Amino acid sequence: MKLHIDVLTLFPELFPGPLAASITGRAMSRGLLEIDPVNLRDFSHDERGTVDDKPYGGGPGMLMKVEPLFEATDFLKARSPGAKVVLTTPRGRLFSQKLARELVGEERLIVVCGHYEGVDQRYIDSRVDYEVSIGDYVLTNGNLPAMVMIDAIARLLPGALGCEESSEDESHTGWLLEYPQYTRPEEYEGLKVPEILLSGDHGKIAAWRRQEAEWLTMRRRPELYARHRAWPREIKDVNKD
Amino acid sequence: MKLHIDVLTLFPELFPGPLAASITGRAMSRGLLEIDPVNLRDFSHDERGTVDDKPYGGGPGMLMKVEPLFEATDFLKARSPGAKVVLTTPRGRLFSQKLARELVGEERLIVVCGHYEGVDQRYIDSRVDYEVSIGDYVLTNGNLPAMVMIDAIARLLPGALGCEESSEDESHTGWLLEYPQYTRPEEYEGLKVPEILLSGDHGKIAAWRRQEAEWLTMRRRPELYARHRAWPREIKDVNKD
Repeated sequence: MKLHIDVLTLFPELFPGPLAASITGRAMSRGLLEIDPVNLRDFSHDERGTVDDKPYGGGPGMLMKVEPLFEATDFLKARSPGAKVVLTTPRGRLFSQKLARELVGEERLIVVCGHYEGVDQRYIDSRVDYEVSIGDYVLTNGNLPAMVMIDAIARLLPGALGCEESSEDESHTGWLLEYPQYTRPEEYEGLKVPEILLSGDHGKIAAWRRQEAEWLTMRRRPELYARHRAWPREIKDVNKD
Repeated sequence: MKLHIDVLTLFPELFPGPLAASITGRAMSRGLLEIDPVNLRDFSHDERGTVDDKPYGGGPGMLMKVEPLFEATDFLKARSPGAKVVLTTPRGRLFSQKLARELVGEERLIVVCGHYEGVDQRYIDSRVDYEVSIGDYVLTNGNLPAMVMIDAIARLLPGALGCEESSEDESHTGWLLEYPQYTRPEEYEGLKVPEILLSGDHGKIAAWRRQEAEWLTMRRRPELYARHRAWPREIKDVNKD
């Protein structure tokens, strides 16, 4: 299984960038993942490399124009038949572990980094398969969101993780946040490791961790805790996101 | 107003990286923002640069050890008295535009990039002011989340944005997603711009956009739409996140 990702962006020089470090970089060097940054300006129709224009009907800011987006996407789709097009945009559905698992099943993706105030809707309607937002905050452009999505997807590729790493944190595969963890030394600056963790009683340790995870989730992410309480475990394992 | 951010990380070479492009880079070159990457391994106690160890009580993966974290943080806090410590971790509260606005009010931040399976809880309890997650998905480590947070914070610095840019997308300052937008040409591959946007009737255009934004939000982010419906506008403007 190998995943090829074309990244259509105004900043191709940023890729792979941080993605070359750590697990994603290892997936690339093992041939599991290819990241191919493509400069949208190469598909502009003038010498200045214009790719944006003012919105019809007025309003602040500039939009990404149709021609370069359509032509770049059709060029990449001809090279990668069947590739799904993913646009990073604040108006997208929220990115989730569930969507990462869905996208890692594709052979080829075209990730389009949103920019300016938005994208001409005709491009979205006729070429984009997924509009995705990584969270409810405002970023400069879609390049960091593209990296975040690619990182989450790439570490799910079979063979990307070493045997010492777990492919899914408990924090996001179930709906409970991670319990408190401790490592050596037993005491540091007067701060001690909870005795139960030194007891060797694995049943008690598991029960304590479960209790702590429930408490933290209840306080900090009540909406996750509600989902945790609402679903029986068998259904959670199938529908986790 | 100037913001200094120390980034405590195992990958200092990744910073500023993508943050040097676009608006964040301009904030740096205008002297509004300083990003200072600090290598956690410089605070290790052995020649191999060890910063992780196994969890007490068993379990998969490794944790970040207390000594390098405490010593690095205390070193940075001595240099930046009053600096708030922000840890990127999947068990944190969700990052939001509201939290970005809160953090841009600080003069100095220490952003700690989480790594491995987690961080010794004693460090969190005694040194960390904010545990923050950028979303419900699993990433390789906390470096991309740190960049995402810094990007969202930095563009709120007064003077960071040019006059052509709006500091807050409508998508996240209210609770409605952005309406469809269109730019030239009027027709492309048989796809037309909606006639109302060419009408010049600003009242009708505003009503159409509002309606479209409500429809999209209702379908795609029903939980945002419920918040939008539940709060009168004056309260929304104060509590928006």
